[in-house]
Formats: sequence, C-alpha cells, structure tokens
Amino acid sequence: MKTRDKIIQASIELFNDQGERNVTTNHIAAHLAISPGNLYYHFRNKEDIILSIYEEYARSLLLETLPKVSAEVKPLDSLVLYMDSVFQTTMKFRFFYSNLPVLLDKNPSLREKYVEVQQSISERVSQLLISLRAAEIIDFPDDSLADIVSILRLINTFWVSFYQTQTIVNEVNDSVFYQGVLKILVILRPYTKTHAINELNQACELYQQRYQEAVEALSLA
Amino acid sequence: MKTRDKIIQASIELFNDQGERNVTTNHIAAHLAISPGNLYYHFRNKEDIILSIYEEYARSLLLETLPKVSAEVKPLDSLVLYMDSVFQTTMKFRFFYSNLPVLLDKNPSLREKYVEVQQSISERVSQLLISLRAAEIIDFPDDSLADIVSILRLINTFWVSFYQTQTIVNEVNDSVFYQGVLKILVILRPYTKTHAINELNQACELYQQRYQEAVEALSLA
Repeated sequence: MKTRDKIIQASIELFNDQGERNVTTNHIAAHLAISPGNLYYHFRNKEDIILSIYEEYARSLLLETLPKVSAEVKPLDSLVLYMDSVFQTTMKFRFFYSNLPVLLDKNPSLREKYVEVQQSISERVSQLLISLRAAEIIDFPDDSLADIVSILRLINTFWVSFYQTQTIVNEVNDSVFYQGVLKILVILRPYTKTHAINELNQACELYQQRYQEAVEALSLA
Repeated sequence: MKTRDKIIQASIELFNDQGERNVTTNHIAAHLAISPGNLYYHFRNKEDIILSIYEEYARSLLLETLPKVSAEVKPLDSLVLYMDSVFQTTMKFRFFYSNLPVLLDKNPSLREKYVEVQQSISERVSQLLISLRAAEIIDFPDDSLADIVSILRLINTFWVSFYQTQTIVNEVNDSVFYQGVLKILVILRPYTKTHAINELNQACELYQQRYQEAVEALSLA
C-alpha cells in the first residue's frame, strides 16, 4: 500500500476510534511510524486528510452505490439496498457524520463537494420514490415528495449519530445500520399500498433477522 | 447579572457564532473583559461551562416545556407546541447539537444528564402520541409507537444540523425551526384519520405562514 493510502486508512481508523478532534497529524504519523515531514509531503494538514477521505472514499461510495432505476431490480429492493449502503457508509465514516456541521464550517472545499453530492443523492432518492409510486408499491401526493426525500436523507445522515447519543455506553456495530434501514421502512409503511404490504413486510423481516444475527454475533464475540 | 451568568450567556453566543471548537476559555474571558482567573473561579474548564449550559438552560427548557396531557388543550396542539419549543431550544443551543456525539464522548457527566433527559422526552412524546390516538386524530399499531417516537426525536435533535449542511452558505434564522415543525407534521400526516385531516392542515397552514413571515422579515432586514 502506498504511504498516502496508509495515511488515509490509519486516519479513518483513528478518527473513528478516538474522535477526529483528539487525533493530530503527529498522532497519525506516530501510529504509522513515519516522520511528520513524510506525512506533510502528502497532506498539508488534517483538514486536507479529511477532504481526501471524503473525496476519495465517502463520496465515491455514496455515488457509486446510487442505484440505477432498471427493469431487473424490484423498485423496493433498489431503495432498500441503497439505504443499506448509505448507512454502511455513515458507519464506516462515523467520525465525519458525528460533527458534520462543524467539519463543513471549517473547510469550504469540503462543504462544496458535500453539498454537490447531497444534491445528486436527493435527485436519485426522488427518482426511486417516483418509480416506487409508478410500480404502485407506495402512493404520495406530488407536493409531499421533497419533504419525504428530506426526511429519508436526514435519517440517513444522522441515524448513527442519534444512536450514539441515546445510551451511556457509546458502542456501534453492524446492528446499528440494520436498525437504520428498519427506520426507513417505518417511514415508507403508511404510504405503502395494501397489495404491496407483504413485500414491505418481507423487507422488514429480512432486516429484523440481520439485526438479530448481528446482535447475537456480538454477544458471542 | 452575576459573573457566572454573564460567562454562560457569552459562551452560548460565542459558541453559536464561532463554533464551540474555535472558542477557548481565554476568548470568553477576553470577550467579557474579565481575567482568566476570574473565569476559572466559576468554571474548571470549557467542558464545565458546556455542562452548566446544558444543566441550567437546555435541560430545563426541554423539560419545562414538556406539555401536560390535559383536557384543556387539544392533543394535536400539545404536540405541535411541544415540537415548536424543542426546535427553538435546538436553535438556541445549536453549537451543542451540531457536534453532539463528540461533546457527549468528551464529557461523561454531560452524557449521563443528556441520556436521562432523552428518556423523559421519549416517554412524554409516547404519551402525546397515545393521547392523539385516543382522541382519534391519528392511528398507528402499538408495535410502531417506539419507532415513530425515535423518528420524531431524531428529527427534533438533528433538523437544525441537517439544515446547516445542505447549502453553501450556512445561515440559520427563525424560518429554520418553523420548517422543522412542518417536517413533524409530514411524519404525522399519513397516520392522520380522515375526519382530522382539516385540523392537521390548519396546523400546517399556520406554520407555513410563520415560515413565510420569517423569510420575509429576513429579506427586509
């Protein structure tokens, strides 16, 4: 692995484990047993590392997993798989989402890229909801679309952060993002048409099962 | 005003305007033209100031406004007024919510109080939803209650933060919390019983109007 990539990987790990705020470029260099000078050869400062993490990893994960609306995948599956992958991304980069407004304020280039990605995601989530409506899985009035999209994205962005603030012991594991997907299905349920409730229930059961398995795997570990 | 209260007021203002992370106890002392020693007489460190802000202000605002379920106030009004006051509180202490998981990780006493308050709020929001169901305004199955409460609280907690991450220019004003209340009404709409839709629409129109007025006041300013 190239030094630059090693720095990025170590930074993600240290930021998630110890909090981005408590980790300096010196800590990162010491963790990798490289000189601070070597780190500065690759990155100007910590903000530059965070920008690269977002630009090279989070951004591409969020955009690559944007599902294409196709005839081959059922619309509900497209939406659920997409939400699943968004929650996985927010878990993987949870240091980033746990103080997102602060990080964006500190770093105008990061804000610019983040806002641009958010706009693409909004458009795609809108398309997914419209295709769910066209397939007669859900129904909603046109003037509710933008609000439903906002609510789904707010849950996507802050579910892991919310989870981290609800208990005395702050521990995240795979069960957390399965719970996030289940919350999305709760939002969709009242919009679901009667004949499609079974399909929604199947998706709920699948994620309920994954959630249980993740909890059990944890208690065995 | 006592020095201790002056320190708290100035800290809230500086944290909101400049970001809590960029404000040191020395900045706060300089802003008030007092010596750092005088500040340390009242507070051990910045974490201690944040703990006091939460303990004396945010916590009491969040708990005092917990509406009593009574025969005099319509259940929908109780819920809407409560959500309104929660959003006002998150606006007033937005520095706190914009990196909540990070602040709670740094400060175990703060986490303990926060989690305790969250549990009270959850119970009260549950009661409000149950009284809305008893009044036949909304309907939902028992096993959805906990999820709906979580979703409403997630929106309460992170709406202002979400708003702050959606545009290139990060500016918050009163229109933001009216939009938050409108999002809560979007969540409730599909659960609303047919004969109560007018009541919900009236609440939406009221907050839509407040939102418009806030936007207009801003463009005049």
